[in-house]
Amino acid sequence: MAAVRVAVRRALEALPPEPRLVLVACSGGADSLALAGALAFEARKAGRPAGGVTIDHGLQEGSAARAETVVRTMADLGLDPAGSVAVTVAGRGGPENAARDARYAALDETTASLDAAAVLLGHTRDDQAETVLMGLARGSGARSLAGMPPSFVRAFGAREIRYVRPLLDIDRATTRRACLAMGLEPWDDPHNDDPAYTRVRVRRDALPVLEKALGPGITEALARTARLLREDADALDAFAERAYADCETEAPAPFSVALALDGVAGLPKAVRTRVLRKAAVSAGSPPGTLAAVHVEHVDRLVTAWRGQRHVDLPGGVRAYRREGRLLFGPGRSE
Amino acid sequence: MAAVRVAVRRALEALPPEPRLVLVACSGGADSLALAGALAFEARKAGRPAGGVTIDHGLQEGSAARAETVVRTMADLGLDPAGSVAVTVAGRGGPENAARDARYAALDETTASLDAAAVLLGHTRDDQAETVLMGLARGSGARSLAGMPPSFVRAFGAREIRYVRPLLDIDRATTRRACLAMGLEPWDDPHNDDPAYTRVRVRRDALPVLEKALGPGITEALARTARLLREDADALDAFAERAYADCETEAPAPFSVALALDGVAGLPKAVRTRVLRKAAVSAGSPPGTLAAVHVEHVDRLVTAWRGQRHVDLPGGVRAYRREGRLLFGPGRSE
Repeated sequence: MAAVRVAVRRALEALPPEPRLVLVACSGGADSLALAGALAFEARKAGRPAGGVTIDHGLQEGSAARAETVVRTMADLGLDPAGSVAVTVAGRGGPENAARDARYAALDETTASLDAAAVLLGHTRDDQAETVLMGLARGSGARSLAGMPPSFVRAFGAREIRYVRPLLDIDRATTRRACLAMGLEPWDDPHNDDPAYTRVRVRRDALPVLEKALGPGITEALARTARLLREDADALDAFAERAYADCETEAPAPFSVALALDGVAGLPKAVRTRVLRKAAVSAGSPPGTLAAVHVEHVDRLVTAWRGQRHVDLPGGVRAYRREGRLLFGPGRSE
Repeated sequence: MAAVRVAVRRALEALPPEPRLVLVACSGGADSLALAGALAFEARKAGRPAGGVTIDHGLQEGSAARAETVVRTMADLGLDPAGSVAVTVAGRGGPENAARDARYAALDETTASLDAAAVLLGHTRDDQAETVLMGLARGSGARSLAGMPPSFVRAFGAREIRYVRPLLDIDRATTRRACLAMGLEPWDDPHNDDPAYTRVRVRRDALPVLEKALGPGITEALARTARLLREDADALDAFAERAYADCETEAPAPFSVALALDGVAGLPKAVRTRVLRKAAVSAGSPPGTLAAVHVEHVDRLVTAWRGQRHVDLPGGVRAYRREGRLLFGPGRSE
């Protein structure tokens, strides 16, 4: 319990000092319930208003009644306001993504309407380890292994909604014990045992086997990896941002992006590929489908030029090497 | 077979053009046997001398006879010279490390005495994936996930011995098929099934479960991750190298390293922590025991200074913040 409270206290201290409302997003599961309990306690101590919101995804029998129970628990903890928001889950990218999109949209709106300073989310170190392993399957480098950031903002109209994850260094077993210590009864979402979800398979099957093969401490190691790789990715993105600005030059029609070859060629490969990726995306190649292998082909225009005419990229974008420049533009322009 | 030959051809083309001997290190297993067969074929085509060496670790009953069989196979392939070197495995860091150290020492010596241009090693994409997963357990960032480099040099006296891994993009099943196609019968090392070895547990238990949880293609994803993170680590190490030189300043006795605080504070965290790590190591902290958490504490002298007196590091090294500098020196100097 102490660990969860300390983590929440630090998160509150890191927020701007004016005593605006802080919200917790609570599903009723052990992680977010412990978070709600700790927020109620720490906010009272710090003289800060704190509220709670639960999202009713409407995906399971009795979800409205469950949401009501969570609201009552939050109100009993002293969170005020405590409420639920019903959302309709429908969208692309699979049920997990659709539910997440609907949840964040509702949280954005609730936070904006209450003018809250931040929303606390209950993700733990175990969630982080699972996220890193899921990123491993993408194989797209540091960013995909960087896991969930400890805080982030989402744009909502002209506002920025701040989200904070105070429990990323705390394991799931600790949140469960904290609930017990606070007399709170967590709800076990049956979705958390449904092997149709990648995350459930990772948690239930992959992590225990990895622990057995590699020794205990794999969860901590994965979380530490995420943090270190996020720092690496941040630094390299910043270097690439600067290098891009240095290399960018006026693009002749019909091209939309031009880079000076000299400048690009002198960059370390990790920065160069990030600059080339940014150029391709700026020219209209969709970031979701532009893969490392495409960027690799563009890189060969720089480092292994043997007269290649162009490189075709997703989204009908082509990259050319011409007269000391790399040009990115529409595929049919030749 | 074609894939293995193309990979070897590319590796030979990447070597300096003068026709010095190229060696293959061959255990008799499918990977290095396919490599030996492809080297014999491609070297003959390219008019380059090629030889083979097998290491007899003396760890198993009948290992000398096995080594003789491998030598005969290599000679039959046309590799000349073809020979075996018996080593004594005794050393620290567990049997896997001791065997590897003995093997590389013997390969260094053989390569130097034959004045060979390079030694080819048979590691495949599957080996690479296993190495990345084993690095994951260390949780020490990009370098520990960067796997095995496609080529590297080792110092041997005044010489540099070059090692090349042509098969890092080829999977184990392909080397087995290549052996079959070349009429070569691979030897299955019983050590490759002994669950006392971490690598065997990763191969046999962890990878299949990961594949089931995350979908097929995890081996490729891990190998791709290794390559991308190696590029990241190379770039960040180069930035840190330069930043270190910029920040280094004269160290007053009894300190051995001093960095200008201003310079260090302005660096992105991923570069800053690498600079601080280098300073600690230069001051005598052993790189093997200096962990991310130690460097993190030194970093707080820079970014979260609240009057900490010093930070103790492994190897009796202390870091201090004084008069606009970070000082690294002996622990008892206060």
